[in-house]
Amino acid sequence: MLGMKSFIEKNKQRFLDELFEFLRIPSVSADPKFDGDMKAGASWIQGKLLDAGMDLAEICPTAGHPIVFSQKIIDKNLPTILVYGHYDVQPADPYELWDSPPFEPVIRKSKVHPDGAIFARGACDDKGQIYMHVKAIEGMLENNSLTCNVKVMFEGEEEVGSENLETFIKANKEKLAADVILISDTSIIANDIPSVETGLRGLSYMEVEVTGPNRDLHSGVYGGAVANPANVLSKMIASLHDEDGRITVEGFYDKVIELNLEEREALEKAPFDENEYKEDLDIDAVAGEKGYTTRERAAIRPTLDVNGIWSGYTGEGSKTVLPSKANAKISMRLVPDQDWIEISELFDKHFRAIAPPTVKVKVSRHHGGQPYVTPTDSIGYQAAFNAMQEAFDGKTPVPTRGGGSIPIVALFEEVLGLKSILFGFGLDSDALHSPNENYGVFNFFKGIETIPLFYKHFAQLSK
Amino acid sequence: MLGMKSFIEKNKQRFLDELFEFLRIPSVSADPKFDGDMKAGASWIQGKLLDAGMDLAEICPTAGHPIVFSQKIIDKNLPTILVYGHYDVQPADPYELWDSPPFEPVIRKSKVHPDGAIFARGACDDKGQIYMHVKAIEGMLENNSLTCNVKVMFEGEEEVGSENLETFIKANKEKLAADVILISDTSIIANDIPSVETGLRGLSYMEVEVTGPNRDLHSGVYGGAVANPANVLSKMIASLHDEDGRITVEGFYDKVIELNLEEREALEKAPFDENEYKEDLDIDAVAGEKGYTTRERAAIRPTLDVNGIWSGYTGEGSKTVLPSKANAKISMRLVPDQDWIEISELFDKHFRAIAPPTVKVKVSRHHGGQPYVTPTDSIGYQAAFNAMQEAFDGKTPVPTRGGGSIPIVALFEEVLGLKSILFGFGLDSDALHSPNENYGVFNFFKGIETIPLFYKHFAQLSK
Repeated sequence: MLGMKSFIEKNKQRFLDELFEFLRIPSVSADPKFDGDMKAGASWIQGKLLDAGMDLAEICPTAGHPIVFSQKIIDKNLPTILVYGHYDVQPADPYELWDSPPFEPVIRKSKVHPDGAIFARGACDDKGQIYMHVKAIEGMLENNSLTCNVKVMFEGEEEVGSENLETFIKANKEKLAADVILISDTSIIANDIPSVETGLRGLSYMEVEVTGPNRDLHSGVYGGAVANPANVLSKMIASLHDEDGRITVEGFYDKVIELNLEEREALEKAPFDENEYKEDLDIDAVAGEKGYTTRERAAIRPTLDVNGIWSGYTGEGSKTVLPSKANAKISMRLVPDQDWIEISELFDKHFRAIAPPTVKVKVSRHHGGQPYVTPTDSIGYQAAFNAMQEAFDGKTPVPTRGGGSIPIVALFEEVLGLKSILFGFGLDSDALHSPNENYGVFNFFKGIETIPLFYKHFAQLSK
Repeated sequence: MLGMKSFIEKNKQRFLDELFEFLRIPSVSADPKFDGDMKAGASWIQGKLLDAGMDLAEICPTAGHPIVFSQKIIDKNLPTILVYGHYDVQPADPYELWDSPPFEPVIRKSKVHPDGAIFARGACDDKGQIYMHVKAIEGMLENNSLTCNVKVMFEGEEEVGSENLETFIKANKEKLAADVILISDTSIIANDIPSVETGLRGLSYMEVEVTGPNRDLHSGVYGGAVANPANVLSKMIASLHDEDGRITVEGFYDKVIELNLEEREALEKAPFDENEYKEDLDIDAVAGEKGYTTRERAAIRPTLDVNGIWSGYTGEGSKTVLPSKANAKISMRLVPDQDWIEISELFDKHFRAIAPPTVKVKVSRHHGGQPYVTPTDSIGYQAAFNAMQEAFDGKTPVPTRGGGSIPIVALFEEVLGLKSILFGFGLDSDALHSPNENYGVFNFFKGIETIPLFYKHFAQLSK
């Protein structure tokens, strides 16, 4: 779309300035101390949607953080695209590992982003990507090239499980009626290799607490005679994987759909350099489930990871204490057809079962979501495929499976009966959820350029 | 000693008031932010030694926290007792688990202390116990009943490894010349069961860091394909004990002296109720090395305990992160004839050896000390035995082996050629190193009453 390209050219600096404003708002949904910033983030994006020319943009309160809903209905007979994304971000700690403050965006060149990348928490996940949609809509309206009706739903709890979004969509099926859901919260293979994700993993996020003695003890007076909950928890966690890297939770793999050789070969076609991968992470060896490649382990196989563990004295110097408690946050990524509720229950049951009589165990559930696969024969997927191909000068996009989770996607299909198209423009190396999260300036503008092409192709294919 | 009893009766309230002043000084040696309080603690006790009537009391600077030295030489021909103790305390955190602030001492009745106990960090370990000596000396001088010369050495780094004390005693052998070392930093079995400890465990305190990827990663994008250092560390820690609760560090048991059946039976004679023990700790089962009793596990057998572990996100809510690093503080209690330097090296070597190629491992040493055994046929032990028996109305004291460590004791023998007598008055249930540390009012005054009896018997037996 030529009109779009010149529109972007004209406004580059303004778009970046606006995005920087957005990124300066520390909208961390997990931590109550940022509640005020969550509200600020919601009204900021609401204002920008109205500026872009939407008919309405409203802030919908929930039991948690608000949802921003907006729409532009140009013609009841045209198809309607529902854009979903989130304005909340992951906690930024550990702050000391950031080269520049997480909520003070700066542009720096990097190896994979020679033209510069925007460094800030949320730059890619997901503020930078939802803002592409706002600017793309602004452009289509300015150029009178909007070919579909558009509805927008930006939530503030994606990073903490979208619990209240579920209530919201169940209560607003009419309002959210559409033909397809468009989501930019995933990645492409490389800036010269377009791709469209065809699936996501599900998630089950648990927390465990192991209690030994009723108080911290002197490790000399009691050590050796009383079970140490930190040692016990370590042993329990160690037992959750077997020697082949398979998860030992009973029944964990029962519903896992094994891909056939053809499907696996198709996924392996995507270019991937394991040495570059190891170099980027500065690791000498990869690890994972026996019998699967690195990409398969990170996409089509389920996982179990400790996201956090803490017990005893963690301050300066030494303290000879036998801790009373040990805690861990443990999450599992799931694949079709694992059910996150069922897996959470299996984990709970298993973890209690392996606890020795010397300790008491508490298991609680944070949140989760179902795995999801996009049918490649759907109009939505085809439109995404064509748009990518057109935007990347005719290069054939590669279908990929994403390792991350957007818990709500499966629910969209169940409640709204809509397929979601994973139309992300980030890179796996953008340090999502990590210090120095960043988003390529190229990717930001390429997204704004490509999104209208999706509208165009979706409208055509819908005829 | 009648004179002593009435002296105590007269001054009870003053002694408590003074001890409370001492306990209000947060002299935590491990944490630099308390350095000022360490200095305050040293000069406070220096002043009290002078008030008690000592010839001199000086503050001896070291590379770390100062040492307080004091003496009263009444007759070169009389034996000399060197009193050792420490004015530093363990960190008080977690503060929230204290029923009253750790540095605002209060007296409350408790199950084992029906007449009341002093609740404060350091109440028993070791401020309360060293202050017994200051008041006992004051009493003996007032009654003209001092039967030995006395030297006092109170250090400020016992809780962090006494590293600078070692330099100090090596440089001051003349000054510290004595016939025996008297230490009150241990416990008796119960307030109606006097006992004298005949041994202590040694200590090797290590810290480990396991590094996986060079940054925290998105657990969805990388999970399953990259080794998670928190899972890896858990597995490594789990492997440090075998199914029988024996430590797997290669060569760990090589120098452990097995007690013969007779010695083991002697130790088992001390009254002990395992159900009360479990009830006090609120645990359903004890744990430990196969083939040994609870008391043996806590006294004559070596241990390995995680004192602290931390990795990833430990804040509120959830963060789907695959951490870059995982850390743990791990300490081992040692028994004769294990050498703490050698054990530290064995641990270091072993821990590196079990690390998988997917991570990098750093091992560092905090501090340590040698195990120690007091010969029961020595004059010092006999004097302690007789003093306890006399103070506890003729009850025969029980010889016990302590599970804790006073790293410097073995060094005293090596450098000064002196035996140390473990003449403590605490109870194992006094929550040393824990929230709500306390010291029985009975124990405090009983100590002041018993110490002069040690001087009396030591002088007699030395003739």
